[in-house]
Amino acid sequence: MAQVDLSFVIPIAILAGLGGAAVLARDVLRRDTGNDQMREIAGAIQQGARAFLRRQYKAIGGIAGGLAVVFAVALGLQGGWQAGLKTAFAFGLGAGFSALSGFIGMHISIRSNVRSAAGSLKSVNEALVTALRGGAVSGLSIVAMSLAGISILYYGYGSGVPATEADQGRLILSIVAFGFGASLVALFAQLGGGIYTKAADVGADLVGKVESGIPEDDPRNPAVIADLVGDNVGDCAGRGADLFESTAAENIGAMVLGVLLFGYFGIAGIIFPLVARGFGVIASIVGVYVVRAREEESPMAALNRGYLVTTIVAAILFAVAAWAMLQPPAASGADPWTWLRYWFCGLAGMVTAFLYVWITQYYTEARYRPVKEIARASETGPATNIISGFSVGLEATWLPVLVVSGALLISYWLGQSTAIPGGGLYGTAIATMGMLSTAAYILAMDTFGPIVDNGAGIVQMSGMSEEARRNMDKLDAAGNTTKALTKGYAVGSAALAAFLLFNAYLKEAAPPGVVLGVDMAHPETFLGGFIGAALVFLFTAYAIRAVGRAAWAIIKDVRDQFRENPGIMTGASKPDYARSVDIVTKSALKEMIVPGLLAVATPIAVGIFFRFVRVTPGLAAGEPLGGTLMVGTIAGVLMALVLNTGGGAWDNAKKFIEAGNLGGKGSATHKAAVVGDTVGDPFKDTAGPSLHILVKLLSTITLVIAPLLV
Amino acid sequence: MAQVDLSFVIPIAILAGLGGAAVLARDVLRRDTGNDQMREIAGAIQQGARAFLRRQYKAIGGIAGGLAVVFAVALGLQGGWQAGLKTAFAFGLGAGFSALSGFIGMHISIRSNVRSAAGSLKSVNEALVTALRGGAVSGLSIVAMSLAGISILYYGYGSGVPATEADQGRLILSIVAFGFGASLVALFAQLGGGIYTKAADVGADLVGKVESGIPEDDPRNPAVIADLVGDNVGDCAGRGADLFESTAAENIGAMVLGVLLFGYFGIAGIIFPLVARGFGVIASIVGVYVVRAREEESPMAALNRGYLVTTIVAAILFAVAAWAMLQPPAASGADPWTWLRYWFCGLAGMVTAFLYVWITQYYTEARYRPVKEIARASETGPATNIISGFSVGLEATWLPVLVVSGALLISYWLGQSTAIPGGGLYGTAIATMGMLSTAAYILAMDTFGPIVDNGAGIVQMSGMSEEARRNMDKLDAAGNTTKALTKGYAVGSAALAAFLLFNAYLKEAAPPGVVLGVDMAHPETFLGGFIGAALVFLFTAYAIRAVGRAAWAIIKDVRDQFRENPGIMTGASKPDYARSVDIVTKSALKEMIVPGLLAVATPIAVGIFFRFVRVTPGLAAGEPLGGTLMVGTIAGVLMALVLNTGGGAWDNAKKFIEAGNLGGKGSATHKAAVVGDTVGDPFKDTAGPSLHILVKLLSTITLVIAPLLV
Repeated sequence: MAQVDLSFVIPIAILAGLGGAAVLARDVLRRDTGNDQMREIAGAIQQGARAFLRRQYKAIGGIAGGLAVVFAVALGLQGGWQAGLKTAFAFGLGAGFSALSGFIGMHISIRSNVRSAAGSLKSVNEALVTALRGGAVSGLSIVAMSLAGISILYYGYGSGVPATEADQGRLILSIVAFGFGASLVALFAQLGGGIYTKAADVGADLVGKVESGIPEDDPRNPAVIADLVGDNVGDCAGRGADLFESTAAENIGAMVLGVLLFGYFGIAGIIFPLVARGFGVIASIVGVYVVRAREEESPMAALNRGYLVTTIVAAILFAVAAWAMLQPPAASGADPWTWLRYWFCGLAGMVTAFLYVWITQYYTEARYRPVKEIARASETGPATNIISGFSVGLEATWLPVLVVSGALLISYWLGQSTAIPGGGLYGTAIATMGMLSTAAYILAMDTFGPIVDNGAGIVQMSGMSEEARRNMDKLDAAGNTTKALTKGYAVGSAALAAFLLFNAYLKEAAPPGVVLGVDMAHPETFLGGFIGAALVFLFTAYAIRAVGRAAWAIIKDVRDQFRENPGIMTGASKPDYARSVDIVTKSALKEMIVPGLLAVATPIAVGIFFRFVRVTPGLAAGEPLGGTLMVGTIAGVLMALVLNTGGGAWDNAKKFIEAGNLGGKGSATHKAAVVGDTVGDPFKDTAGPSLHILVKLLSTITLVIAPLLV
Repeated sequence: MAQVDLSFVIPIAILAGLGGAAVLARDVLRRDTGNDQMREIAGAIQQGARAFLRRQYKAIGGIAGGLAVVFAVALGLQGGWQAGLKTAFAFGLGAGFSALSGFIGMHISIRSNVRSAAGSLKSVNEALVTALRGGAVSGLSIVAMSLAGISILYYGYGSGVPATEADQGRLILSIVAFGFGASLVALFAQLGGGIYTKAADVGADLVGKVESGIPEDDPRNPAVIADLVGDNVGDCAGRGADLFESTAAENIGAMVLGVLLFGYFGIAGIIFPLVARGFGVIASIVGVYVVRAREEESPMAALNRGYLVTTIVAAILFAVAAWAMLQPPAASGADPWTWLRYWFCGLAGMVTAFLYVWITQYYTEARYRPVKEIARASETGPATNIISGFSVGLEATWLPVLVVSGALLISYWLGQSTAIPGGGLYGTAIATMGMLSTAAYILAMDTFGPIVDNGAGIVQMSGMSEEARRNMDKLDAAGNTTKALTKGYAVGSAALAAFLLFNAYLKEAAPPGVVLGVDMAHPETFLGGFIGAALVFLFTAYAIRAVGRAAWAIIKDVRDQFRENPGIMTGASKPDYARSVDIVTKSALKEMIVPGLLAVATPIAVGIFFRFVRVTPGLAAGEPLGGTLMVGTIAGVLMALVLNTGGGAWDNAKKFIEAGNLGGKGSATHKAAVVGDTVGDPFKDTAGPSLHILVKLLSTITLVIAPLLV
C-alpha cells in the first residue's frame, strides 16, 4: 500500500502547541493573585528571577556568539562560506530558541506560583490545576518551538526539499548545529540556575535554620527570596532548556539516520520523527486537560492519570504515523509489516519511559527498602547516613542499564527484521521517538514542581490559613516526586538516545565510502574513551564545588545583614532581600563558566589533538573522538543516575524521619539525615541534571565538528 | 649483534627474592619483642588474624575449587581434556600462590609490629628498619613467587620450550588461568579483609570514641584488638594478594603479546617480562638495604631515598635486559636501535610510577590545596565537608588519566618506530613492565604501613614511654602516606596494564585469521560496555554497604559487652576481645560473598549471553565482552581514584585539624571532619583497593573464557 503524506501534521502540531500554551496561559493569568502581601512576595521573586536571567543570558550570549563566529570561520574554510554561514545561523537559532524556552518556563512559573497559592485557599484541585496548567504552558511551547525550529531549517535550507539521498544528507548536516546551539545554552542555563538554586537553598538553610534557629521560608531570613527565585531559575528555566535541547538533538539524530533508509521511505523516513513529535504534542494537550484532582485522592494519582492518558493517546497516534509513513514499496523486498515492527519499537520506548519512572520511584520513595535503609543508617550518625545514601545511588544504576539494554536490543532487532539495510539503527531511533512522545506532558509535570514549591513558600511567608498551608504542602510533596520522576525520564531518554546520536556522528565523521567504527582496541580510541569518562568526573567535581563556593558567599551576606541590622531578627525591620539575590546571582554566574567551558572545550581539544597525532596507521581522524563520546556518555548517564537517585533518596529519608519516624524532627537521627539531604542538594539539582545535558552536548558538538575531522 | 640469553636471571632472581626474604625474616624475628604486656597484646592480634585468615581461606577455597572444576569441564569439552586439566591446574596454582602470598604478608607483619614497637624504645631508625624489613619480607617473597609460578608453568607445560610461534601461543594460553586464580583469591582476600578492617575501625570508633568517650586504642574498648587485627588482614594480606595478582596478570599479558614478535626476538621476547621482573627483585633488595633513617630527618625522606635507589638500579638493569634480549636480527628490517627504544618504553613506565606517586601526594597531603580546602569546608559542618571531599576525589581523576594517556601514546609510538609489526603494543607492555619493576620495594613500603600502625597501637595500649610513643607516631604518619602512595601506584599500574591485557584478550578471543576489534558502534558491544561500567558502580555499592553492615554487628557487640559487664569501663575487668574478633570475622566473610560473586559472574554472564544473542550480522562472539572489559576497566580505574583519593584527603583533613588548625581537636570543625574521615574509610580501604583487583579480574577471567567464545 502507498504511503500517506502526513507532513501537514507538523504545522498543525506547532500551532496547536503554541495555541494551547496561549490558551492555558490566559486561563492561568486570569486567576486570582491573592492578597497584597502575597503579591508583594511574588513581585520580589519575579524581580529577582528576571534580573538573574537577564544577566545569565548576557553571559551565555557572549560565549555562544563567539563560538558561532569560530564555527562559521572553521567550517567556512573547510566546506565553503555558504556552509559556514548556514551552520552559524542554525546554531544561533538553536541557541536563541533554547534561551526563549528557558525564558517562557520562568516567565509563566513566576506568575503561576502566587495564583496556585491563592487557589489553595479554595481547594487542592484549584491549586493543582493552576500549577499544572502553568507548567503545561512551558511544556507545550517548548516542544512546539523545538519542532518549529527544526522544520524552519529543514524546509528553509531545503528550499522545496531536495530529491536525492545525498542532498538530503547534506541538508540534515547543515541543521545539526541547531541541536548544538540548544545544548550549549541549556548547559549553561542548567549549570547557572542549578548552582544558583542550591547555593541559595543550602546557604539559607545553614545560616537560617542551623545558625539562627528560624524556620524555613521565614521572612526574617535575608536569603529567603533568593531561595524562592532559585526554584524558578534552576528548575524551570534550566529544565526547560534541557528538555528543549533533548527533543531537538534527538529529532535531528533520528533524521540523520532516516537518510539511511531514503531508498525505502523517501522523505517520509526523514520527517517521521517530526510527525511523531507533533502527535506527541497533541497527546499531551489531551493529557493536561484530563487532570482534575478529587478532594479525597492524592495529587500524584491525578497527575499519573494524566500521564497514562497521554501515553495511550500517543501510542495510538504513533501507530497511525507508522502505518501512514513507514510502508516500504512492495517491490523493495522489505517486510510488508515493517510499519508494525516500527510501531513496536515506539512502544518499547514508551515502556522504557514507564520503567524509568517506576525505578526512580522505587529508589527514592520512603515506602521502599532503599530510603528506609538510609533513614535507619542515620541512627548511627551522619557518616553512616552518607555511606548508605551513596551506596543506594551507586546501586540505582544497574536496573536502568538493564532496561535500556533490553530496549536497545529489542528495537534494533525489530528494526533489523524489516530486512531493510540500516533498519536496526532506525529502530532504536524510533524507540527514542516513542519515549520522547510524552515529553510535553512530562515537562508540564516537572514545572509543576517549582510552581507549587514557590506557592507553598508564599503561603508560609504571608501567614495564610492553616487549610491553605495543608493544601499546598500536599502539592509540594507531589511536586518533589514529579521533579524526581522527570529526572529519571530525562536520564533514560539520554541513555536511549545516546546510541542513535553516536551513529549519527559516525555517519557524519566517516570519510567518503568508509564505515567508521569506534574500535577501543586502538590506543587513541581507548584514550579518547578514558578522557571522556574523566571529563564526566571532573565536570561533576566542578559543578558540586561551585555550589559550595556560591553558598559560602550568601552565608557571608546573611551573617553580615544580621550583624549590621539587629532589627531583622526581632522583626522590626525588613532584610535586604535584593542584596542577597544580587550576591548569589553574581557568584552563580561566575561559577558556571569553568565547568561549562570544560564541557565544550574537551571534545574540541580531543578532536583536534587526534586530528594531528595518531599512532595507529590508517586510523580515521574522527574515531578517537567517537571513543570520548561513547564512554563519556556511559559514564555521564551512570554518574547522573548516582547523583539524582542518591540526592532524592537522602531528601526523602529526611522527610520520612520528619514525618515522625525513628525519633522525628529535632532528634539526633534527624540531624544526621539533614546532613545527607544537604549533600544531596547539589548532587540532584546541580550536577545530575547538568550531566544529562553534558552527554547530549557531547553528541551535538561532535556532530558539528565532524566535517572538520573527515 | 646477536642476542644474549638472560633466562638464567629468572631462577637467580627467584632464589635471591626468596633468600633475601628469609634473611630479612631472620633479621626481624631475632629482634627484641619488648615486655610481657606488649607480647600479650601482639599474641591476641596474631590469634585473631590467624583465625580470620583460616576461615577466609576455607570460604575462598570452596569457591575457587568449584570454579576450577567448572572451567576444567567447560574447557575440556571445548578443547580436549588435557587443555581443561592444564587450565584447572594453572588456576589452582595461581589461587594457591596468591593465598600463600597473603599468608606470608600477614604472618610476618603480625610479628614485626611488636618488634617495631620495641625498637621505638631505642630510636626511630630501629623501629623504621624493623618495619620496613618486615614489609620487605612479604614484598620480596610475593614478587619472587609470582615469578616462580609463571616460570614453573611456562617451562613445565612447554617441556623444553616449543619452537614455533603457534606452539608458543598455545603454551601461553594454557597458563593464563594462573592469573585468574591469583585475581580471584586476591579479590576475595581484599574484599573480606577490607570489610573486616573498616568495620572494626568504624565500629570501634563510633562506639568507643563517640558514644563512650574513650580514646583510640584504649584497652577498655572490646573492639580494639579487632581493629588491630584488621590492619593485618586488610592491608597486609589483602594488598599482598593484590600485588601478587598484578604482577602475575601483567606478566602473562605481556608474554601473550611477546608471541606476536616471535619472528624477531624468538623466545627472548616472550620471557623478557620475566627477566625484567627478576632484575626488579634484585633492585628492590638493594633499595631495602639502603634505607636507614637519620635521627633528625623525616621517615618519609628515608623511605623515598630507598625508592629512588630502587628505581635507578632497576632502570640500569632494564637497559641491560633490553640490550641483551631485544635485538632483532640485522636482516629483519627492524630498526637496529630497537632495544634502546624499548628501554625508553620501560623508562616511560617508571616515570609514570613516579608521577602517580606525586599526584597522590598532591591530592592527599595537608600541605597542598585540596586537603586544606576540605579542612576549611568543615567549618560549616559535616555536609560541606562531604561535598568538598567528594569533589576533591572526583577532581583527582583527570591528571592520572592524562599521565597514563601520555605514557601509552609514547610507548606505543616508540614501539611502533622499531618497524616491527605489533611492536607498538609490545611497547606498552614494556612500559608496564618498567612501572612494575619496583613492585617489590613498593610492596615493602606498603606493608610498612600496617606494621607501624599496629606498633603504635601496641605502644599505646601497653602504656610505654612518651618518647616511644612520639617515635611510633612519626612512623605511623609516614605509614599513612606510604599506604596512600601504594594505592596510587596500584591504580596507575592497573590503568597502564589495562591496554595490554585488552589486547591479549582480543588476540585470544579472535577466530582464526581474524583481527578482533571492540567496535562500540555495534549495539551489543556498546551494551557490553554499559554493563561493565554498571558492574563497577554496583560492586562499589555492595563493598561500601558491607562495611556499614559489618560495623553495625560489632557496634552491637560492644554495647552488649559494656552493658553485661560494667567493670570494663572502670578498668576492673577485661573485655572479651575474642568475641568481638569472632563477630566481625563472621560478618565480614558473609558480606564479601555477594560483591565477589557479582564480579566473577557478570563477565561470564555477558560472555554467554552474547555468545547466543547477537543482532549485528557477522559479529564475533567475543566482541561484546571486550566492551565490558574495556569500559569496565575505565570506570573501575576512575572510581578507584575517586574513592582512594577522597578517602585519603578526608583522613588527612581531619589530621590537619587535629594538629591544632582551625580550632583543633574537639571543635565543631573537628567533629565535621571526623564524619568525612569515617565516610572515607570504606572508600579508601575497602571499595577502592578491591576495584584495582576487579579491573584485573575482568581481564584475567575474560582471558580464561576467551577460548569458549571463539
